Amino acid sequence: MRVSWETTVARKREAQCAAIAHFEASHMQEVEHSLTDLADVAVVAEKLNLGGLKVEDVVKSYISRAIAAHRKTNCLTEILFEDAIRKGQALDKSLTGPCYHGRPFHGVPMTLKDQFNVIGYDSSIGYVGRTFSPATESCALVKMLESLGAVIIAKTNLPQSIMWCETANPLWGLTTNPLNEGYTSGGSTGGESALLALHGSLVGWGTDIGGSIRIPSHMMGIYGFKPSSSRLPYHGVPVSTEGQEHVPSSVGPMARSLASIEFVMRHLIQAQPWEYDARCAPIPWRQEVFDSIRSRPLTIGVLFDDQVVRPHPPVTRVLTSAIAALKAAGHDIIEWDATLHSDIIATMDAFYAADGCEDIKVDMARGGEPTIPHVQQLINRAKPMSVYEYWQLNKKKWALQQAYHEKWKHIKSQTTGKIADVLIMPPMPHTSVPHGGCKWVGYTKIWNLLDYSALVIPAGKVKPSDENAQWDHAPRSEMDLWNSDLWKTHKAEMADLQLPVGIQIVGRKLEEEKVLAAGSVIDKILRQQI
Amino acid sequence: MRVSWETTVARKREAQCAAIAHFEASHMQEVEHSLTDLADVAVVAEKLNLGGLKVEDVVKSYISRAIAAHRKTNCLTEILFEDAIRKGQALDKSLTGPCYHGRPFHGVPMTLKDQFNVIGYDSSIGYVGRTFSPATESCALVKMLESLGAVIIAKTNLPQSIMWCETANPLWGLTTNPLNEGYTSGGSTGGESALLALHGSLVGWGTDIGGSIRIPSHMMGIYGFKPSSSRLPYHGVPVSTEGQEHVPSSVGPMARSLASIEFVMRHLIQAQPWEYDARCAPIPWRQEVFDSIRSRPLTIGVLFDDQVVRPHPPVTRVLTSAIAALKAAGHDIIEWDATLHSDIIATMDAFYAADGCEDIKVDMARGGEPTIPHVQQLINRAKPMSVYEYWQLNKKKWALQQAYHEKWKHIKSQTTGKIADVLIMPPMPHTSVPHGGCKWVGYTKIWNLLDYSALVIPAGKVKPSDENAQWDHAPRSEMDLWNSDLWKTHKAEMADLQLPVGIQIVGRKLEEEKVLAAGSVIDKILRQQI
Repeated sequence: MRVSWETTVARKREAQCAAIAHFEASHMQEVEHSLTDLADVAVVAEKLNLGGLKVEDVVKSYISRAIAAHRKTNCLTEILFEDAIRKGQALDKSLTGPCYHGRPFHGVPMTLKDQFNVIGYDSSIGYVGRTFSPATESCALVKMLESLGAVIIAKTNLPQSIMWCETANPLWGLTTNPLNEGYTSGGSTGGESALLALHGSLVGWGTDIGGSIRIPSHMMGIYGFKPSSSRLPYHGVPVSTEGQEHVPSSVGPMARSLASIEFVMRHLIQAQPWEYDARCAPIPWRQEVFDSIRSRPLTIGVLFDDQVVRPHPPVTRVLTSAIAALKAAGHDIIEWDATLHSDIIATMDAFYAADGCEDIKVDMARGGEPTIPHVQQLINRAKPMSVYEYWQLNKKKWALQQAYHEKWKHIKSQTTGKIADVLIMPPMPHTSVPHGGCKWVGYTKIWNLLDYSALVIPAGKVKPSDENAQWDHAPRSEMDLWNSDLWKTHKAEMADLQLPVGIQIVGRKLEEEKVLAAGSVIDKILRQQI
Repeated sequence: MRVSWETTVARKREAQCAAIAHFEASHMQEVEHSLTDLADVAVVAEKLNLGGLKVEDVVKSYISRAIAAHRKTNCLTEILFEDAIRKGQALDKSLTGPCYHGRPFHGVPMTLKDQFNVIGYDSSIGYVGRTFSPATESCALVKMLESLGAVIIAKTNLPQSIMWCETANPLWGLTTNPLNEGYTSGGSTGGESALLALHGSLVGWGTDIGGSIRIPSHMMGIYGFKPSSSRLPYHGVPVSTEGQEHVPSSVGPMARSLASIEFVMRHLIQAQPWEYDARCAPIPWRQEVFDSIRSRPLTIGVLFDDQVVRPHPPVTRVLTSAIAALKAAGHDIIEWDATLHSDIIATMDAFYAADGCEDIKVDMARGGEPTIPHVQQLINRAKPMSVYEYWQLNKKKWALQQAYHEKWKHIKSQTTGKIADVLIMPPMPHTSVPHGGCKWVGYTKIWNLLDYSALVIPAGKVKPSDENAQWDHAPRSEMDLWNSDLWKTHKAEMADLQLPVGIQIVGRKLEEEKVLAAGSVIDKILRQQI
């Protein structure tokens, strides 16, 4: 007999509680809490490799912080604590002398969105029907991370179906923002952002098909990177609408420092992801591109407003202030425009209904749980199209990709005649918002259809003075009105919470080294300013 | 009022005749016929660049040979002679002194399958309904070729809808094999193969979604290369089933020497196709890979038989003899097997009907012409699937791609433990056959689903002694029986015609430099042997 979805949920949550309780009972007294203060993976990995820190201690310290983060925000799903401690002990034993061990992630605690297969554990992707069905093989990313020495300590929450930028599902419940439980930590990789912000992990791995790495990073004041889709391996990572090729989802890292992001990207690419995943492009790590970008004045296109939804005053202020700092540092800022942005978003929206939401319905039927409002909205407007119509949409997509490519080459600096190295723009028209408050992800998702590389870095916080900023424009649309009302209603609270504000740095397809290098230049300038 | 398809065809053919007649009347007396003897583009381009040859003379010489080839095989479609002569004259004028000019394709006559857009000319792709609708912009490939100095002299025939490996359509008619008009020159790039074999062009450009470059090259005894799809630009090249992303079509060159193929690939990639086409991968020309492969003994996997259709005796003999020569030259030959081959072909066949042939029907309805038998067969078995079912097929495809990737890494040399650098195998189970005789393209099309790079080089000819080869296996299937009967019925004639036999050299995704370098090693050994 099929058990009710509520029973399944109760069993999963009970097992989670038990695993947490077991750790607390067995290990809590040994935990050295201060080991989670370092944000930089390279620094931690070096200490671990040189034997200055024991992996077991670091892993236990992160686990204890992860438990605390979970208690506060409900960010965890699968618990891998015992496996992680065992692996940590084995790694400690493998370190026979005080010499550099050479596994770049040796002993580094990491966490994964509950989507990456880890042998022996579920990958729920937010569905009840996918539980009690543990993966029989780890995904390519996990194999690579582990072969480089990383220790996975837990998996983290995401929305039902993954297809939303907040984090809730009937299986694991709602993940909250540590700054205020009434606010979202973003999504779909919203378990990671809450956990990382609270030092419960050193590196979190997410996926991004519309902003799912960048949005939670922006909302929680951390760093998140979406490479082009063929740069890191997706093999063994189940996803909603699996099999669609119209808009590719990317795997990418989230962390509390940009150096950590660059470190894990460089070492993963040097380990040749294309040997693990047939869909990865055989492009080595291009250190010369990285170095070149860091050694010269940059040409940076700036887009303040996508002309659909106008960003809230703190988002614009933070970007304006970043631009001023970049100009002062000698970089050349060119004005970008929103041409093609709304066309691209409209094409992406037409794709959403391509299968009549059959894929989501199959998963919903398997579990039997209720749908979250956003998924219900998706289903309600889903009208399946024919394969022929689908191909016509793809043609339109290719034309838009080519048109944006041409656009990029034609916007030139009036001073130097150069085209933009990267763009800089808001990740969202707002900061974190009360649960259910998100509607517009156009600032991030455009780069998924184009498969460009995009990084979010923290750049400021909402301030009390933002409340007085001029905010009287006539709403352009219902969407713009909604965003305007969000600000009017919540600005005092947002300022009070000092909600983080990020900026987004964008490069063209497969320009990961360029974006990371430009990011490090910009980040350094912003850190001096803040 | 809409004109009948016959009228449209008559008008197109009349215009073609007039253009040819005009050239003959205006220029034929000046033509120096011997200028078409050189097979190697680099040699011709150097002479042209140094002023030792005049572009106008070379262009006219090739045009006259192209006209002769057309008279014999019906290989041409659009005639660009006058434009070509004008461009040749302009290039000659641009060469002001006897110094190297630096445009690598300076004055090199080239031809294009009637699919690549050239401003002012039709791209019929074999459909009546696409005529009298000249392109308003040249495709990315043509822009690149022209900026490198090439001169396009004509476009060439292809089958209705492109989706077949012989060359016939109601618009331009049947293209024949110059060795015997009852035989096919292959397809879909069958106009190019006939033209190139008769020295009517120096380099021909085709596309390949199942063997359309490699099959005609094999049949006509020339060289043809299908790179992975993202290596050369497809932008501005209309195609059947446009918008589908399940099996990518590739652009690639055909020529009478391998040096020519390598020369054009190298210079095109050095000109950065990714700056012209948003879908190209930003992978530079990797000379170090090319050089490394040419400097050491290779590990070569050999597949004699895909276990579906057994190749004819001359195909097997030629491959066997190539293997013996490679072993004698010190290369390590490892046995490959046909695991996954028939699964992959079955998955590809399931894709063919995805849109219920709506795409083809739209084009057929526009022109009103009759369908060729192969297209009719496609339409007859077409049953549209839902987008959801289509995604399930894509998932299967990805799993097969990953499985083949694993397979490649697990077949190792018993002597060295190394995996294969490249594979070597037949391009088809037979040579050229009488028109309408082709049925099985499994030897080539598997590499399209996998998006691997694959080269065909000439390796021998059918000999009278092949007629006596043992040929008594029990047919495995209707397909195998058909192929067996083909041999029994035509072997005497095939031997009499000394039909060319090629071999196919295959590398993994985006390993173009590796395949071209291995090809040059193998080609050199074969040329010494032949």
